[in-house]
Amino acid sequence: MTKRMIFTLAVMDSVGHNFQGSWRHPDSRSSEYKKLDLWTHLVRKAEAAKIDAIFFTDQLGMTGTCNGSEDIVLEMAVTVPLGEPSMLISALAQATKNIGLTWTSSIIQHPPFTFARMVSTLDHISDGRVGWNIVTSTNDRAYRAFGFSGVPSHEERYGRADEYLEVVYKLWEESWEDGAVLADRERGIYTDPRKVHSISHHGPRFDVDGYHLMEPSPQRSPVLMQAGGSPIGLDFASRHAEVMFLAAMSPEGAAKQINAVRDLARGYGRTADDILFLQGLSFVIGSTEDEAARKLEEWEGWRSAEGQIAYWTGLTGLDLGQFDPQTRLEDLVDTIPGIRGAFISAINAAPPGVKPTVLNFLTTAFKPHTIAGTPDMIADKIEAFQAVGVDGIQIMSVVMPGSYEEFFEHAVPVLQKRGLMQQDYARGTLREKLFAGRGAHLTATHPAARCRRYT
Amino acid sequence: MTKRMIFTLAVMDSVGHNFQGSWRHPDSRSSEYKKLDLWTHLVRKAEAAKIDAIFFTDQLGMTGTCNGSEDIVLEMAVTVPLGEPSMLISALAQATKNIGLTWTSSIIQHPPFTFARMVSTLDHISDGRVGWNIVTSTNDRAYRAFGFSGVPSHEERYGRADEYLEVVYKLWEESWEDGAVLADRERGIYTDPRKVHSISHHGPRFDVDGYHLMEPSPQRSPVLMQAGGSPIGLDFASRHAEVMFLAAMSPEGAAKQINAVRDLARGYGRTADDILFLQGLSFVIGSTEDEAARKLEEWEGWRSAEGQIAYWTGLTGLDLGQFDPQTRLEDLVDTIPGIRGAFISAINAAPPGVKPTVLNFLTTAFKPHTIAGTPDMIADKIEAFQAVGVDGIQIMSVVMPGSYEEFFEHAVPVLQKRGLMQQDYARGTLREKLFAGRGAHLTATHPAARCRRYT
Repeated sequence: MTKRMIFTLAVMDSVGHNFQGSWRHPDSRSSEYKKLDLWTHLVRKAEAAKIDAIFFTDQLGMTGTCNGSEDIVLEMAVTVPLGEPSMLISALAQATKNIGLTWTSSIIQHPPFTFARMVSTLDHISDGRVGWNIVTSTNDRAYRAFGFSGVPSHEERYGRADEYLEVVYKLWEESWEDGAVLADRERGIYTDPRKVHSISHHGPRFDVDGYHLMEPSPQRSPVLMQAGGSPIGLDFASRHAEVMFLAAMSPEGAAKQINAVRDLARGYGRTADDILFLQGLSFVIGSTEDEAARKLEEWEGWRSAEGQIAYWTGLTGLDLGQFDPQTRLEDLVDTIPGIRGAFISAINAAPPGVKPTVLNFLTTAFKPHTIAGTPDMIADKIEAFQAVGVDGIQIMSVVMPGSYEEFFEHAVPVLQKRGLMQQDYARGTLREKLFAGRGAHLTATHPAARCRRYT
Repeated sequence: MTKRMIFTLAVMDSVGHNFQGSWRHPDSRSSEYKKLDLWTHLVRKAEAAKIDAIFFTDQLGMTGTCNGSEDIVLEMAVTVPLGEPSMLISALAQATKNIGLTWTSSIIQHPPFTFARMVSTLDHISDGRVGWNIVTSTNDRAYRAFGFSGVPSHEERYGRADEYLEVVYKLWEESWEDGAVLADRERGIYTDPRKVHSISHHGPRFDVDGYHLMEPSPQRSPVLMQAGGSPIGLDFASRHAEVMFLAAMSPEGAAKQINAVRDLARGYGRTADDILFLQGLSFVIGSTEDEAARKLEEWEGWRSAEGQIAYWTGLTGLDLGQFDPQTRLEDLVDTIPGIRGAFISAINAAPPGVKPTVLNFLTTAFKPHTIAGTPDMIADKIEAFQAVGVDGIQIMSVVMPGSYEEFFEHAVPVLQKRGLMQQDYARGTLREKLFAGRGAHLTATHPAARCRRYT
């Protein structure tokens, strides 16, 4: 029997997300990002299509450049302006009943005591449907907005993330025992004080004394998500993540990452099915392959190459945006330390007589994997990812919300018929919906479980 | 012609707020605080009654005691557990069209860069209906949850608040010029980069470099609220507040505070009508005075004296909770520095033969001013406050949401008939609704206006 896969929608509370320039498309509603209607419309449609979760990504200050200038970031709205996604969640919880409500929050933007209360408040409001994508910010502008003098080392960033998690785990899992809340009107006891405990965390980066201000929510800890790619990031994910996002260029590439993380996770006492792996994909759907190809071409016509370069350079920290996009790679081989090998590979991989440019390089290396075809062709590709161990698909939009609506209308029925997609939601919290047969809380194999002193 | 007054509802995302123990009342829905239904129900009814705004107060960690123990805080749910009120706002914005959505946020719980983005996001979502009550936390537990070793001095707390405001003003008012957002699909320019400016703040407590992540919202800065009572707090309010909350025991007491703040404000170049003063009052309504008195007695029967003592001692920092509530004041005159004079006044003010206790003292000094009577008697009392310059009433609930519903049903029609309350909402943002004939933004006399370099 085919195992059903998980499907999530990757969005951003901004005009431009991953497909730069698509906000200019006549069908795009991206510039309505700052009002609720666009989001409640999308989330209701997604719930009708049995999508598992909506996922808001976030980016605390884009530092990308093109031709040496940052202007394109603002002109093409490359993730700026950008709302705080947690602010949208209660309205979306009110508009829906089952879909997961998940978002990114950098560990540098809220103190852990504050963030723990925000998440608990939203997990109550949504009846246990929230998930958190843990990120350590990677760009200079983000750190300078929070009093740092620049991006700390990889080790320091993940050390801070580990300590942040230690604090929020203590607040979510340790501070209030099960059964602390009696809500007993007769006896006049709302909370039993013997079952509430102050945490006392004193580490190199955080000092937090006190009990969690909010009573335990349905999931206690939100569903924990991560997308680390570096060795230290993969190690972090293998310890903490329940959902991991992949941006592989092929099923084989995805398999490699999955196996690496699963091996690490087993080393930390977690089991192979403790982590769900979601591959990021974009879809362009036609009733024939030709129609899909024509639509892809039409959509690609709205892509801003300059915006895309700024986005890619900002995300990766590779300062390719200093060059004209048409510069040939062969002229740049020795300019940026660390990328020499990748440039030479790209030059060697080009068809005879073609001299690849910066734009070619970035398009090949960093464009989100896009699949254009009929619903059945799309289902075949998704099955190919499932065959190597991918648990789900994180769908990236092209035109908002049209490309999602097309997916709901045309791809979902085919995926459901093949058993690749759920026909209805399971009962319970987001964690119970994603991990069939498990409980609402983190498993005993998760490091947060070590905080549960009182069980 | 009578000038209409402002009416706001003071609530808390918690089981217990200011009337301790009332959650046990059979009609109370306070224990539903963690779900949305209670709040959307209340805010819709309030909007139908043309209430100006709902106001969520907040309290980052209650440190009150009774009989030397803190247990009562948890048992009687004295502001704990407590959700983060900003998490509710988007759902309430979606449920309504006109009512103001305002809340308290301590300057120690979010970094200013984060908080500015949260507020801008919510001001967009609500079409310019948000207000922020600026507080510096006053209790030890709050500071220890955020890495401080205890409560800083009054001067340091307000110094921090001044610097925090300086940062958020720069982000809201200076960073994005008017006209920066073009959203021009044809020319492919969402934002004009020449009109977006990085702020560069380097002060003793905050270092913030970067531009605001969110485009200007309808109000830019939220309506600014404050409730300081100390000399330094009044000075702070006179410089920054547009709405000030009073907890006077009589119209005369309110007048004194209003005049003091207005004098200070004029000294800072602000005008007499730059600040609206809202007096906190509770109402118990009956069709006769006797019926109201009986209802007040019934409601008072649900009050938890121990919970109330813990609440008062936690709020004021006066450690009266260490004593048995029945201890006579005359036995304590020399125990707590700074309160000797107040104790002696209370002893002298007591009727002959009555020896006031700690409980008597706290009840008289800190119980929110409650008015029990017919709708007309209530309107008379409100008029008496208006006569001395009070601009509005902050209504404190007794039983949630019943005592508000009674106010909407019985008091509002009388107040509207007398011209004391609006019959409908004015157009525009919350600021335009509260300050007739002014614009959506802070006035030129406000210190935030100094940030507007580009007008």
